[in-house]
Amino acid sequence: MSSTTLLNEFPAPRHDTSSSNIQGAVAEFVGILGKDNVISDKEALAPYSTSEWSSYSPGKTEVSSVVVCPSTTEEVSRVMEICHRRRLPVTAYAGGTSLEGHFAPTRGGVCIDFQGMDQILKVHKDDLDVVVQPAVQWEVLNEELAKDGLFFPPDPGPGAMIGGMVGTGCSGTNAYHYGTMRDWVLSLTVVLADGTIIKTRQRPRKSSAGYDLTRMFIGSEGTLGLVTEATLKLAVKPMNEAVAVASFASVHDAASCVSEVVKQGVNIAAVELLDDVQMKCINTSQTTSRSWDEAPTLFFKFSGAPGEVKEKISIVQKLAENANKKTFTFARNSEEVDELWSARKVALWSILQMKQQPTDHVWTTDVAVPMSRLPDIIEQTREEISASGLLGGIVGHVGDGNFHAMLLFNDDQRKVAESVVHNMVKRAVEMEGTVTGEHGVGLVKRDYLEHELGKTTVDTMRRFKQALDPLCLLNCDKVVRVQVPKQGEIPEW
Amino acid sequence: MSSTTLLNEFPAPRHDTSSSNIQGAVAEFVGILGKDNVISDKEALAPYSTSEWSSYSPGKTEVSSVVVCPSTTEEVSRVMEICHRRRLPVTAYAGGTSLEGHFAPTRGGVCIDFQGMDQILKVHKDDLDVVVQPAVQWEVLNEELAKDGLFFPPDPGPGAMIGGMVGTGCSGTNAYHYGTMRDWVLSLTVVLADGTIIKTRQRPRKSSAGYDLTRMFIGSEGTLGLVTEATLKLAVKPMNEAVAVASFASVHDAASCVSEVVKQGVNIAAVELLDDVQMKCINTSQTTSRSWDEAPTLFFKFSGAPGEVKEKISIVQKLAENANKKTFTFARNSEEVDELWSARKVALWSILQMKQQPTDHVWTTDVAVPMSRLPDIIEQTREEISASGLLGGIVGHVGDGNFHAMLLFNDDQRKVAESVVHNMVKRAVEMEGTVTGEHGVGLVKRDYLEHELGKTTVDTMRRFKQALDPLCLLNCDKVVRVQVPKQGEIPEW
Repeated sequence: MSSTTLLNEFPAPRHDTSSSNIQGAVAEFVGILGKDNVISDKEALAPYSTSEWSSYSPGKTEVSSVVVCPSTTEEVSRVMEICHRRRLPVTAYAGGTSLEGHFAPTRGGVCIDFQGMDQILKVHKDDLDVVVQPAVQWEVLNEELAKDGLFFPPDPGPGAMIGGMVGTGCSGTNAYHYGTMRDWVLSLTVVLADGTIIKTRQRPRKSSAGYDLTRMFIGSEGTLGLVTEATLKLAVKPMNEAVAVASFASVHDAASCVSEVVKQGVNIAAVELLDDVQMKCINTSQTTSRSWDEAPTLFFKFSGAPGEVKEKISIVQKLAENANKKTFTFARNSEEVDELWSARKVALWSILQMKQQPTDHVWTTDVAVPMSRLPDIIEQTREEISASGLLGGIVGHVGDGNFHAMLLFNDDQRKVAESVVHNMVKRAVEMEGTVTGEHGVGLVKRDYLEHELGKTTVDTMRRFKQALDPLCLLNCDKVVRVQVPKQGEIPEW
Repeated sequence: MSSTTLLNEFPAPRHDTSSSNIQGAVAEFVGILGKDNVISDKEALAPYSTSEWSSYSPGKTEVSSVVVCPSTTEEVSRVMEICHRRRLPVTAYAGGTSLEGHFAPTRGGVCIDFQGMDQILKVHKDDLDVVVQPAVQWEVLNEELAKDGLFFPPDPGPGAMIGGMVGTGCSGTNAYHYGTMRDWVLSLTVVLADGTIIKTRQRPRKSSAGYDLTRMFIGSEGTLGLVTEATLKLAVKPMNEAVAVASFASVHDAASCVSEVVKQGVNIAAVELLDDVQMKCINTSQTTSRSWDEAPTLFFKFSGAPGEVKEKISIVQKLAENANKKTFTFARNSEEVDELWSARKVALWSILQMKQQPTDHVWTTDVAVPMSRLPDIIEQTREEISASGLLGGIVGHVGDGNFHAMLLFNDDQRKVAESVVHNMVKRAVEMEGTVTGEHGVGLVKRDYLEHELGKTTVDTMRRFKQALDPLCLLNCDKVVRVQVPKQGEIPEW
């Protein structure tokens, strides 16, 4: 009659992934979805376990036995009824862009591939909302919405799809002004572990009726239910947009400029920081048409009525001067806007371009801290990266206290990279921050949660998991552990 | 092994409110809190059950047996350990401003009065956050924050306290631009039903690490845990503020003006609608220094850099003209700003002023619908109020599709008022809206949840309640029912 579930109290998952059970399930799946939508060819299964950019390397057994491709909520529900009855573990797959092992099928079983559910169902332009299926890419959605002068603000990595964006509680460069995924979902249709279909809300723009199930599913990484439809809030495209770029002698100078902009209440649309290493990579990889000062650089975005944008640029220019800017450039037309912003856009790509051998990898990680601590944690991380001998660029959503490190390492340097990431996470926790600002914990950061939040809080999360998915069918092992780890399995803090 | 809890599956609460159990508990409470902080005098207990402005009238048995006044999280935890062991139901009390019977102690037992926990613990001005206890009033908080040029945006009714604001997931006039309570809480310290203390987060401005427990507690109306501390996000006060007031021949004209402002992407700080009845009440009650056109009226708030504010006013003025405005006035200085905005501020007060007999009451209720449906639902509701013979003013957070009706009625007219509210709720649900945009469901709107959300969704909420509070100790009977109602107890839909 307690309120939390301790690790050793969670009933050990008793999945049945025997080949006879899988074969029986496959026959049932084929009956519902047709033969073409049930994949069990071994070679076709592997890509559903990981990606080139994931920081988690799945073990050999971490592969699903069958992939199913439903096209409706009802089909997903029927698939889950079968998996529930047969005790088959289930992993959801859509864009495959997550970074921390979110869709590694640790227990095998069934993978639900949502890529067939990619329709924009209805744009309500007078209500500023849209109803979509989970495999709609946010860039594709925004192309469609642009026709009505609208857009959906959350802007994570390219290729990400709404289902996964809900799963990780993503954000991006627009989060400073517009907020994160948690702020832009009005309602979700979700299939629960036993096949029950729920819809968390209708379409009001706000509500205080009952528990906030919508936000409970956002950031739950597919462990509490499967999103089959989403109603998203939309924003009206600003009248005008402008971009300014300012370089500084140090990260601290850049950060103090941002701090003044925030304190003066200048309502900017975005502010991003790229460090000197990152700027150098962009030059070296020649991924943009212009060449850049190789110094810590701020990218500002402004939006609003024409006079308003000009006024804000001039205020920010003055504040950049007070903070000893090295250079300050602003775009005079939409082509220049795109050109200036392009450097921010290609940041990750430019690091990937530095790979030379097949044994080279890029590890992208993020943490977030209270805003005032950001310059310190960035500087300490930069020093460690530099001392480690790895190449590592820093990109910061500086208005949110959130930053990414992108580390280039080869197979021999994996331990070094692990240690850099570990220390970055530890620093963030010690500065009252979080182990991830926008990527989610997946498998790689799961065991850090207790350090960040405390044991009782994680035990409360485990209680939620147990309540909705007592058999631990949905993306088992993610977010919270459900079985006591072996000795030495968790690295020392 | 299912994912939801049906109503007849919830274990019937077996509370023990016998006088011997209460006496034993009182002795234990005195041991922890001291005699002065344990109240069991009958006359002192009644005010903890309801208020003058609540739309719920508690029955005679709906009164707590004892009120305790803790001052720390640890004391709250020890109180809950006692209540858990003795199976005593618990209701939390702070500002007492809620409207739908949120703190009516339906099962008697223990009331925890948080009013002693009213400290602002720490302002982190460089991080734009503040740590507070639950009984801090939002107006008091904003007075303190103004010293640093900061403010906390959610602005519900006067006197509301942070604990209750979390409980109802409140908002107010700032929600259109800044969002609701759900967007402004970084972290909560919560005591669970068994006394376990958890802290949902540290202080990063955003995070995607683990389930969003913070938002699970926001809007949970004290049924999942007791908030003993909150870390709140803060905003920087805008450089300048201005207000404009425009009256129109009809609600539809006013709404079409707002719709154009929104579509053009004019970034306004707030937009509120008061109908002609409401404006007349303000004139009649003489609650402001100026007299107003008795027509549907929009109140716009603008903020930003000086030029930006002027530019936005002139755009809105033009759009108001296109929508056939009757009058358009804007404030030229901060005194005029206060004077113009005062009419919006006194709306509820002006209706209360119309009460003439002790048997007169005011029923304040709210719903929200997709934005485009707001003019229709307001007009239909106005027609019904007018036909009913009641006096009823309308105040709309029109940018959010949310509006309030404030009905003046006497004891003989209660059935008529009930029917107006019922039909307003029904209309909102049929327009894909919600039964409450910012007041919460409490007891009065609880049974509407299934109509709004569907049975399986409410069954999922009930599963969450069961998971965290299996004995149903915390504010039992609120949000979701835990026992099958008697025949006829729920009015027909």
